Amino acid sequence: MRTRHYLLATQKETPADAEIVSHRLMLRAGLIRKLSAGLYTWLPTGLRVLRKVEQVVREEMDRAGAQEVVMPVVQPAELWQESGRWVQYGPELLRIKDRHERDFCLGPTHEEVVTELVRNEVNSYRQLPINLYQIQTKVRDEIRPRFGVMRSREFIMKDAYSFHASQASLEETYRAMHVAYCAVFERLGLAFRPVVADSGSIGGSTSQEFHVLADSGEDAIAFSDGSDYAANIEMAEALPPTAARPAPTAALEEVATPGVDSIASLCSHLAVDATRTVKTLVVAGEEPGSLVALVLRGDHSLNTVKAEKLPGVASPLRLVEEAEVRDTFGAGFGSLGPVGVALPVIADRSAAVLADFSCGANRDGYHLVGVNWERDLPLPRIEDLREVVEGDPSPDGKGVLQLKRGIEVGHIFQLGTKYSEAMDATVLDEHGRSVTLHMGCYGIGVSRIVAAAIEQNHDDRGITWPAAMAPFEVAIVPLNMHKSEAVTSAAEALYEHCRAAGIDVLLDDRDERPGVKFADMELIGIPHRIVIGDKSLAEGEFEYKGRKDDEAQRIDRDHALDFLRAKLAG
Amino acid sequence: MRTRHYLLATQKETPADAEIVSHRLMLRAGLIRKLSAGLYTWLPTGLRVLRKVEQVVREEMDRAGAQEVVMPVVQPAELWQESGRWVQYGPELLRIKDRHERDFCLGPTHEEVVTELVRNEVNSYRQLPINLYQIQTKVRDEIRPRFGVMRSREFIMKDAYSFHASQASLEETYRAMHVAYCAVFERLGLAFRPVVADSGSIGGSTSQEFHVLADSGEDAIAFSDGSDYAANIEMAEALPPTAARPAPTAALEEVATPGVDSIASLCSHLAVDATRTVKTLVVAGEEPGSLVALVLRGDHSLNTVKAEKLPGVASPLRLVEEAEVRDTFGAGFGSLGPVGVALPVIADRSAAVLADFSCGANRDGYHLVGVNWERDLPLPRIEDLREVVEGDPSPDGKGVLQLKRGIEVGHIFQLGTKYSEAMDATVLDEHGRSVTLHMGCYGIGVSRIVAAAIEQNHDDRGITWPAAMAPFEVAIVPLNMHKSEAVTSAAEALYEHCRAAGIDVLLDDRDERPGVKFADMELIGIPHRIVIGDKSLAEGEFEYKGRKDDEAQRIDRDHALDFLRAKLAG
Repeated sequence: MRTRHYLLATQKETPADAEIVSHRLMLRAGLIRKLSAGLYTWLPTGLRVLRKVEQVVREEMDRAGAQEVVMPVVQPAELWQESGRWVQYGPELLRIKDRHERDFCLGPTHEEVVTELVRNEVNSYRQLPINLYQIQTKVRDEIRPRFGVMRSREFIMKDAYSFHASQASLEETYRAMHVAYCAVFERLGLAFRPVVADSGSIGGSTSQEFHVLADSGEDAIAFSDGSDYAANIEMAEALPPTAARPAPTAALEEVATPGVDSIASLCSHLAVDATRTVKTLVVAGEEPGSLVALVLRGDHSLNTVKAEKLPGVASPLRLVEEAEVRDTFGAGFGSLGPVGVALPVIADRSAAVLADFSCGANRDGYHLVGVNWERDLPLPRIEDLREVVEGDPSPDGKGVLQLKRGIEVGHIFQLGTKYSEAMDATVLDEHGRSVTLHMGCYGIGVSRIVAAAIEQNHDDRGITWPAAMAPFEVAIVPLNMHKSEAVTSAAEALYEHCRAAGIDVLLDDRDERPGVKFADMELIGIPHRIVIGDKSLAEGEFEYKGRKDDEAQRIDRDHALDFLRAKLAG
Repeated sequence: MRTRHYLLATQKETPADAEIVSHRLMLRAGLIRKLSAGLYTWLPTGLRVLRKVEQVVREEMDRAGAQEVVMPVVQPAELWQESGRWVQYGPELLRIKDRHERDFCLGPTHEEVVTELVRNEVNSYRQLPINLYQIQTKVRDEIRPRFGVMRSREFIMKDAYSFHASQASLEETYRAMHVAYCAVFERLGLAFRPVVADSGSIGGSTSQEFHVLADSGEDAIAFSDGSDYAANIEMAEALPPTAARPAPTAALEEVATPGVDSIASLCSHLAVDATRTVKTLVVAGEEPGSLVALVLRGDHSLNTVKAEKLPGVASPLRLVEEAEVRDTFGAGFGSLGPVGVALPVIADRSAAVLADFSCGANRDGYHLVGVNWERDLPLPRIEDLREVVEGDPSPDGKGVLQLKRGIEVGHIFQLGTKYSEAMDATVLDEHGRSVTLHMGCYGIGVSRIVAAAIEQNHDDRGITWPAAMAPFEVAIVPLNMHKSEAVTSAAEALYEHCRAAGIDVLLDDRDERPGVKFADMELIGIPHRIVIGDKSLAEGEFEYKGRKDDEAQRIDRDHALDFLRAKLAG
């Protein structure tokens, strides 16, 4: 490709409404353009990246035995009514009426359509297992589309659906898809983690997410440094401390703490560590009007997902207003504590092993010190309430946890018989008996991967693509191309040699200053750059620079192609 | 691919609601399945064909210098309001509202979106010409979807849009796209014709259609046997006869013709040829309430498109009711004629050179014979009114016309400044002046090509794909595979050799009777079939049969791969 005949569409300015780096760089590097909120056109450079991702996904799906199909985007309401989701699905399902006033929707996902297909086409266990996938434009009417293609209304998904005569067969395909997903992200050159996405115990999980690691990720994930364990932080268990609770050594005492309204100010006032304090949060109980006190160690954070799953606690979790707290405790948020309260109390595992700790006195401006469970207050119900922190032991007993932020780009799920029961999808088994199909579904956010890869791979000059995703492998930048015949012929010759060798090459034949060309090629993130100028050419050399290199190097012009081949191979 | 792990989905039964052969065969051969009216899922076999078509289209677009992009399916109403089409476009435009009650539509075409993109990205004539294309799912809310993917509500189009600083540049790209389209259909192995789709004179046409020839085609096209001339029959000019009108030889006479109500019965009654008669059709005139008489030779048919374009004739054409005719002529449809009528009369070129002809007497049950222009009635206004027939001279003066039926699969169009003016899309020219962009658009019905190819290539056993479109190139059919170890190992070995050689091969390893396997492979239309059985194998041979061959032939098993390679190359 030649830049003179190419919609490069790079921009110097940082777009005002782009909040995250991938959104900014995708606009600046000419990968996408916004048509309307959450609707983007993929320009030639962006589409080249997208197609490379698609192809890797397709190859790994095929290798895993999945078969590619394409289902309609427009789906009839009847199927969604059959599954129950026409009512259950929120306004993200874009519902439409055709010219005959019949109800349809634009597919955000295809469980109903594929189940309808399979219940018609598959009658016998001998046709199973079957795994059908498509790479397709999906529509989800996001209430607030943002972050470019990271959270858009139209996006490209690979969605696969497998069907089985038994749970064991489903689990086998589920494992194969796990392997295929890992292969996809490895081939794309992305740092990623498969994480447990539900509360299932290790080994028996029925849902896993695949996260590309990036500081800007929306999700925090916890993973072990000593095993494969990884989980969404909301799902990561904080194990009970192994050490027993020490015996009391201090006397209970009420101290004046004027102005203290946080753990930080308490620690500072009393000169104690936060690990020797507890905080008390008051949430709505399951019974209407009831309250529950949750007690955590001062340095820990409440994990709301864990809390709202507990019996006795309202779901979704609701932290009560200060006025309501004051009615019950006789004090405001700054001075709450578990001593002497008439409410149900639940203590986190780490809070329950403290001795001689400090907490609010339930009297404004006062705290208690030297508090001990079973001496000053009963030992309450104990649960896992907190978010894990770095250094916690891994829930699988191997290694300690580290935390990273991640961007979810894949999800595999054992659906079981949810859709096949609702839609009466059965086959005859080897005994001629009708059995309900077991089903799995497996998604990859193809367009989202492009954005996630940029979040993970960029510097202050632009994108630093992993090799497998780069829109072009090699940029040839001739200097003063239209003034120097020697430069022109050398550049054209290398360009043709690269093309003949099957290398994705971009020849920057624009009549622009070298600085402009260099900046554009770096912004787009082409991994390998050859500069051809009169000076080095006179010495029989080109100049090479890798996108992540600090310095350029001279290379022999006669061996430039071999040099590039070696770079691309390695 | 192995049929045991493949969604073959062939059907013996002819689907009841499929009206045309391609629809029936696409269902029977397991290419598609209906989800809802006009909405189809592409099964693995159909998708393989579709992808091959897409790839040929993509390669030829790239070769012609077009750049691939992907624009959103969902389009904001504002752009369509700007172009005026939000109001003009009929109910085929599927209009939707998002969760915020904002208007959008599902794109049947992308002129507005691409013009919006280009007016933002292209500012200078130096960035022109530019030609952007996409291969994408389109939505058109057909009032009566039918014929499978031939006229569906969701379909796959290649749509390209070019932009230019001048008409001359537009014409250059238009010609390049014409060449590219011919290359696409030639590579796909389809018999096709590019036809003039508007009334433009030869050489200056601004719109051309590409038709795949098939007896079942919806459109009649006329083409010369002596040149490249081809046109939709509605647009094909009938040249004026070269011979002058003969002098009168017969006397005018009124004859009784009881029961005669058609040209056929008139000819039979008078024992004259239809070429010596004229028929008179009465249509609404341009002035409200006015009528016009159209006179054609008895054996010719009125071309309504030509007629309604004439000054003085109402458009759209309206044939008036018999009651209204009777008021004016004093006779019914069976006895109308041009002699003595008080209406404007327009005669077709061929009717105007007749002498001694017969026509209705404007008196029920009577006709005139020996009628002559300028003696018995004035020579009226003369126009080209009729449809061309086989044997007519070609309008370009070279050869004579033949008629075929065709299926429109492509359309190229010089749009000029229609959208760029409405949407204010301009660039600065080399003098720094603002000029309105010239625009072309170029469509190919990718999914429709699959159906059209089947209409053109089938027999009573199924599809007979052109080589480039076949879902698989080679079928290997082992007989009694699971009983004979020799057959199994020979089949597996050939299968692996084919795969290693990059051949698209299907191994039919199902436990089915030979007849079932043969029927399926022929139905799907795999061009080359190898049968492996114990008997021939004992003699070191396989059996080969081309899909269109009458007889199978024995081939040496050791040279089977070379044999197939030669077949595929030739």
